[in-house]
Amino acid sequence: MKVHAPDVFQSMKRELDLVEKQLQESARVDYPIISTMLQDIVKGGGKRLRPLLLLLATRSFSAPGEHAIIAAAGVELLHTASLIHDDNIDRAALRRGNPTLNTELSSGAVILIGDYLFAQSAILAAATGVPRVVMIFATSLADICDGQLRETLEAHDLGQTRESYEQRIYGKTAALFAGAAEMGAVIGEAPEYAIQELRRFGTELGMAFQIVDDILDLRERTDTIGKPAGNDIRQGVVTLPVMMFAEGLSSETDTRRTIERIISGDETNDARIDGVVAQIRDSGALERAEDVARAYVEQARKRLEVIPDDETRRYFNDMLDLAVVRQS
Amino acid sequence: MKVHAPDVFQSMKRELDLVEKQLQESARVDYPIISTMLQDIVKGGGKRLRPLLLLLATRSFSAPGEHAIIAAAGVELLHTASLIHDDNIDRAALRRGNPTLNTELSSGAVILIGDYLFAQSAILAAATGVPRVVMIFATSLADICDGQLRETLEAHDLGQTRESYEQRIYGKTAALFAGAAEMGAVIGEAPEYAIQELRRFGTELGMAFQIVDDILDLRERTDTIGKPAGNDIRQGVVTLPVMMFAEGLSSETDTRRTIERIISGDETNDARIDGVVAQIRDSGALERAEDVARAYVEQARKRLEVIPDDETRRYFNDMLDLAVVRQS
Repeated sequence: MKVHAPDVFQSMKRELDLVEKQLQESARVDYPIISTMLQDIVKGGGKRLRPLLLLLATRSFSAPGEHAIIAAAGVELLHTASLIHDDNIDRAALRRGNPTLNTELSSGAVILIGDYLFAQSAILAAATGVPRVVMIFATSLADICDGQLRETLEAHDLGQTRESYEQRIYGKTAALFAGAAEMGAVIGEAPEYAIQELRRFGTELGMAFQIVDDILDLRERTDTIGKPAGNDIRQGVVTLPVMMFAEGLSSETDTRRTIERIISGDETNDARIDGVVAQIRDSGALERAEDVARAYVEQARKRLEVIPDDETRRYFNDMLDLAVVRQS
Repeated sequence: MKVHAPDVFQSMKRELDLVEKQLQESARVDYPIISTMLQDIVKGGGKRLRPLLLLLATRSFSAPGEHAIIAAAGVELLHTASLIHDDNIDRAALRRGNPTLNTELSSGAVILIGDYLFAQSAILAAATGVPRVVMIFATSLADICDGQLRETLEAHDLGQTRESYEQRIYGKTAALFAGAAEMGAVIGEAPEYAIQELRRFGTELGMAFQIVDDILDLRERTDTIGKPAGNDIRQGVVTLPVMMFAEGLSSETDTRRTIERIISGDETNDARIDGVVAQIRDSGALERAEDVARAYVEQARKRLEVIPDDETRRYFNDMLDLAVVRQS
């Protein structure tokens, strides 16, 4: 599979640079210490996939102008705000290998900084002046909260249904991919059927992306993803590969009981947790989960028939490839 | 001073009942336990002054219809969400004498429930379909966060300037009163100068309201306000009456040093804190702070010249009286 990744980032560089500028501006606050931290967080933040998705969705139907840039920055800030709250809830000390706010600020200040970024992202959504964009923005935020609540309340059961897992990762990740694609298409004044297809494309890309994330959590070494392998089960969160591994175990095995004890927090011995992670890796469960992610990607690929021009369609395809072959 | 309080609530009863219905609907979530808690929080919540203010501002120029009801519910939910995060940051166990979410849920779940209500309030703002209302909503949220951040970062200095205090309570309280009044006037299609005057009215009402709150914190007994008297200084937050009391002390007195130790958390002896609270009460500082609140109220009263009809103007006046004579 050939990956055209540099192409898509290169071709949208002008717009992505403008998004970057807007992000820096929105992260400016009155308190020097916090301002520096916020600028660092915003600068250090990932691959900008959500803004890219939004910009491509607009570009499919019109040249991305100011509204698309502002909305793309809004989507990225919303994502950043939700990561800040998420890390605070998990009390995570590292993200992408860098210290989080939790290591430097009180929990209260971290919550407020997350809230502040929510507010800034809402200001950007409102600044588009497009009521439908604002509504997509607000419902995406509600879906993200729903997904996070499900993770807090329902993720700790090894026997949970696949449906429950999918509902959870839809909220946690796919909802904002879906919202970004839909907002972009609305701003690009796409016909309604294309808006709906792009929204589904975003959902499926997001589902694949999160499943791959859940696989990487078990596969990668600490220095690649910036947190210990098996971090999810250490946090008590059951993900697809773990569910698939557990499906192959009878309810009486020691391994299953050990996993249950890890999830409930009763087993904290690192060597024993590493042992279970190794067993999951060797079982083929990661590959079976990868098949599920690939199925989402292939479903998403079919949606791209609504994209009129070949070049933009190719960039969307690049994004799909990127979602499954990435290392972190 | 005759207070017409029952009149204003009575006259807006139909609209306030509809706001109540919308609040119940927005607080409905999928998880039975949390849904019950949210319904209780939303039901138990205060006097609905912010929705009332918004509805009156609309009513000054047009009959309040669906947009006004939805926006009023949005403003109240935003207020509720910010209280939930606020209580979580303070780790408060009681609000209005009732247990907060903090006594029943993990900190992570409380943060997410606050986020969820932010999302629901944003959905309501977006549902008005009025871009200017959405923008006022988003900037009010940003101002609230700014106020809370200032409270976390700057409120612990006994020698802070009056300006710093005012900036802080503007964000914490007055910004949403201002936003509610402005949104209501925009929805009522008021002329621009009236929108601006009503916004100022909201600001001044909110400033007075918060100063009175800060006075009540020192004046009232535990069973009236549902938390110990002097709760603010126990939390390290310096308020106007405390500043005014401290202004009368030379920097060398024991009392000043004791207050500084209370604020920094080094003095936690309840009897000694109660002693300082009694000294502040006896000093006349509460009455001097009340004068400041009254000055805001009188400034606000002058704004009401823009209200065309006598009855609505009288209701606004009732709200002003209510802000200063209330007991909790």
